[in-house]
Amino acid sequence: MSGKENNFVKDITNIDEDFAKWYTDIVIKAELADYTDTKGCIAIKPYGYAIWENIQNYTDKKFKEVGVKNAYFPVLIPESLLEKEKEHVEGFAPEVAWVTEAGGQKLEEKLCIRPTSETIICTMYSKWLNSWRDLPFVYNQWCNVLRWEKETRPFLRSREFLWQEGHTIHETEEEAKRRTMQMLDIYADVIENLLAIPVIKGLKTESEKFAGAEETYTVETMMHDGRALQAGTSHYFAQNFTIPFEIKYQNREGKEDYPYQTSWGISTRLIGGIIMAHGDNRGLKLPPKVAPIQTVIIPIAMHKEGVKEKALEIFNILNKKYRMEIDLREQYSPGYKFNDWEMRGVPVRIEIGPKDIEQGKIVLVRRDTSEKIDVKIEEIEEKLHSVLDKIQENMYNICKERMIQKTTIAHNMQEFEENLKENQGFIKAMWCGSEKCEEKIHEKTGAKSRCIPFKEENIDNKCVFCGKYADKMVIWGRQY
Amino acid sequence: MSGKENNFVKDITNIDEDFAKWYTDIVIKAELADYTDTKGCIAIKPYGYAIWENIQNYTDKKFKEVGVKNAYFPVLIPESLLEKEKEHVEGFAPEVAWVTEAGGQKLEEKLCIRPTSETIICTMYSKWLNSWRDLPFVYNQWCNVLRWEKETRPFLRSREFLWQEGHTIHETEEEAKRRTMQMLDIYADVIENLLAIPVIKGLKTESEKFAGAEETYTVETMMHDGRALQAGTSHYFAQNFTIPFEIKYQNREGKEDYPYQTSWGISTRLIGGIIMAHGDNRGLKLPPKVAPIQTVIIPIAMHKEGVKEKALEIFNILNKKYRMEIDLREQYSPGYKFNDWEMRGVPVRIEIGPKDIEQGKIVLVRRDTSEKIDVKIEEIEEKLHSVLDKIQENMYNICKERMIQKTTIAHNMQEFEENLKENQGFIKAMWCGSEKCEEKIHEKTGAKSRCIPFKEENIDNKCVFCGKYADKMVIWGRQY
Repeated sequence: MSGKENNFVKDITNIDEDFAKWYTDIVIKAELADYTDTKGCIAIKPYGYAIWENIQNYTDKKFKEVGVKNAYFPVLIPESLLEKEKEHVEGFAPEVAWVTEAGGQKLEEKLCIRPTSETIICTMYSKWLNSWRDLPFVYNQWCNVLRWEKETRPFLRSREFLWQEGHTIHETEEEAKRRTMQMLDIYADVIENLLAIPVIKGLKTESEKFAGAEETYTVETMMHDGRALQAGTSHYFAQNFTIPFEIKYQNREGKEDYPYQTSWGISTRLIGGIIMAHGDNRGLKLPPKVAPIQTVIIPIAMHKEGVKEKALEIFNILNKKYRMEIDLREQYSPGYKFNDWEMRGVPVRIEIGPKDIEQGKIVLVRRDTSEKIDVKIEEIEEKLHSVLDKIQENMYNICKERMIQKTTIAHNMQEFEENLKENQGFIKAMWCGSEKCEEKIHEKTGAKSRCIPFKEENIDNKCVFCGKYADKMVIWGRQY
Repeated sequence: MSGKENNFVKDITNIDEDFAKWYTDIVIKAELADYTDTKGCIAIKPYGYAIWENIQNYTDKKFKEVGVKNAYFPVLIPESLLEKEKEHVEGFAPEVAWVTEAGGQKLEEKLCIRPTSETIICTMYSKWLNSWRDLPFVYNQWCNVLRWEKETRPFLRSREFLWQEGHTIHETEEEAKRRTMQMLDIYADVIENLLAIPVIKGLKTESEKFAGAEETYTVETMMHDGRALQAGTSHYFAQNFTIPFEIKYQNREGKEDYPYQTSWGISTRLIGGIIMAHGDNRGLKLPPKVAPIQTVIIPIAMHKEGVKEKALEIFNILNKKYRMEIDLREQYSPGYKFNDWEMRGVPVRIEIGPKDIEQGKIVLVRRDTSEKIDVKIEEIEEKLHSVLDKIQENMYNICKERMIQKTTIAHNMQEFEENLKENQGFIKAMWCGSEKCEEKIHEKTGAKSRCIPFKEENIDNKCVFCGKYADKMVIWGRQY
């Protein structure tokens, strides 16, 4: 490799020296997104957006299989609506952006840009709902939302972000709770099977739940450095919004009643999760199922007779079945191209040069293991399929293994702090249920409660902080 | 039909008595959209949104076939950016909404909600472009935009609407102009083949072009009442934005140069176009290719043994190939259901009752012609395909016929006014090129220049208004 090529990789900060800087290096250099003149807001570049499109397509299909219908509600919400549910306005008002002038005039009532759409959607549901026969409403919107964060970070904490928000109302508590879980299961499916990131499903504590919700369920994931990323949430609202928003209907007994509500969302933050869960010192590493480019073909000694033609021939065959790219740039050496596409996280590269052609083969190189595999040209189409599957599986297993290794048990605060220092990672510890203990743990360690996992383990019966009786096992960790 | 069922249809205003009221009746009653507490903004209901999704899927596929890549840019644009191109800010500043407070503080610089994204995208392009090797950029975003209209109308003129906006930059004028035309052709394809509405392609006059563009091309359509709807536009910018936004690059000769730019868009206004081009006194009439429900099955005498089962059996077979619905509601009579689904514009209904089952057939009813066709049960799957195709074709032909009939030639203003009075519709007339004549024609008749069509006809060589020499034939019409 030439000096220039070395520099090319050196430009990325070492992942174990400064993970935060490594992260932004990847975002910019892999051309996923860029900073803009609108402070705290990013532009999502085509390569990053293609990841989002793959997430959308997979998720939207799963949604439609369980009866979700897409709709669209206004981006602007009048101040009076935001204020109807007390906890909700307290949670969101401090971080909204307000439109106060429009069409050359000062507005009589200011309008906020939606930080989430419960309030505007509730006003519509109250208009649309009449009888139990109309229920359930199972609507979703794919849209942009805005939250005026003080410290921002591309994808993870951007003032504007893209997401989907599902909002449902149901006749019974039971049906609403079932829907809450069903959507959480879809998120777990998306994150585990598409993004190759294992999740822990659980219930958020009171202090960590969504503003206005009765219960918030979460899928928690672990990043490269052991920190947590909340990857998706599903909320059960009971009648907390349907009563103040007067969403009334005539029930089966002919009486006036209020339905039970849920909401649930995942966002472009998942792209941050993919980067931080899988990336390494060579750059981004994309799971094949969500990768915009699954395989790149790099011809070697392109000027030699027949090389470019053979490479294009193979490209055209594979392009029918896989998301392919071929790198015919003449100004770069093969070595530069190898680094470039590794940095962009493409799961497989195919090298093909004059000698390979003579021998009727190509060389297939895995991004995850760097393994080189000679494959006969006539067998590539099939072989590629199994290699992509193996990469997907291996990437999941690596994350799973890390999560197991970096999850430890603490019986007391000394163990808690020692484990966290050694491991970063997740701590399993008992909790008495007091918000005060939760707060103190956070103050002392920087770790927050991730969730009360569905798979409970009984460690002992003493709160890790106060030592009083405890029957809840909580997973704790520092977070993004 | 019972009295109630009669009322049901009577609720829709007569299309030829009050077309505007008929339009809003359809929007609300067919559950396409609804008014919201955010003045001038609508909520798009699932049935309306499903039409948009079908338009998106079709269009996005066509885009990707010609190398368009999706991306996403911030919804908020700093005031200073909007002001960089003089014509552009003059055109858009009066109708933008401004964010002046956020996160509990007054902003130092106010931010507008994008009315269109040329300015913010140009700042990114200037950052991203270095060499001729990087060109072209052919990016698009599907997003919401906001324009503070004084008079609003669901879909047609809503303050917030959904659209796609493509923004490209190219090495040469020729390439940029070719892209402008290519995208116009895709719009013509979408509108003619998917929406079954014929278009006239042409160039906008100077006074009608996009603020800041060098040339604006349009696809113009004609509605039920003869008025025009501008259905999509494609703009050629030359270097009008790339120079003020300093989008520079090193060209093939190693010199600094500015690229040539285009932008192009279609929006949810097309849903308004579908309603107004095809609807009738029974309600909405959807072209099969864009209809969320292509066929509805209505069992007759549902309580009789075997009817529901047979209907469901047929539903399950057809549902694999077509977008289907089955109406099993017990509280409504078949007659009510017929009206209901006709009003919602479903292209085909299938009636199946005990006698039909005995005879091994169903009755298929076309929404466009009311024709009833007996079809053997084993032949429905195939037959339905050809019937849907015929409906699509027939709906296009009806619109085409109307456009031909309602397009007349005028040699002078008397003819112009008489024709318009008689026909509404389009007037073909010669124009000298003076903006003043254009303005006067508008003042006098309410008609604006739609476009200078690609298919020119030479009527005579005198301007219809001033009588001076004219070599441009313009199509004129009142518009939505």
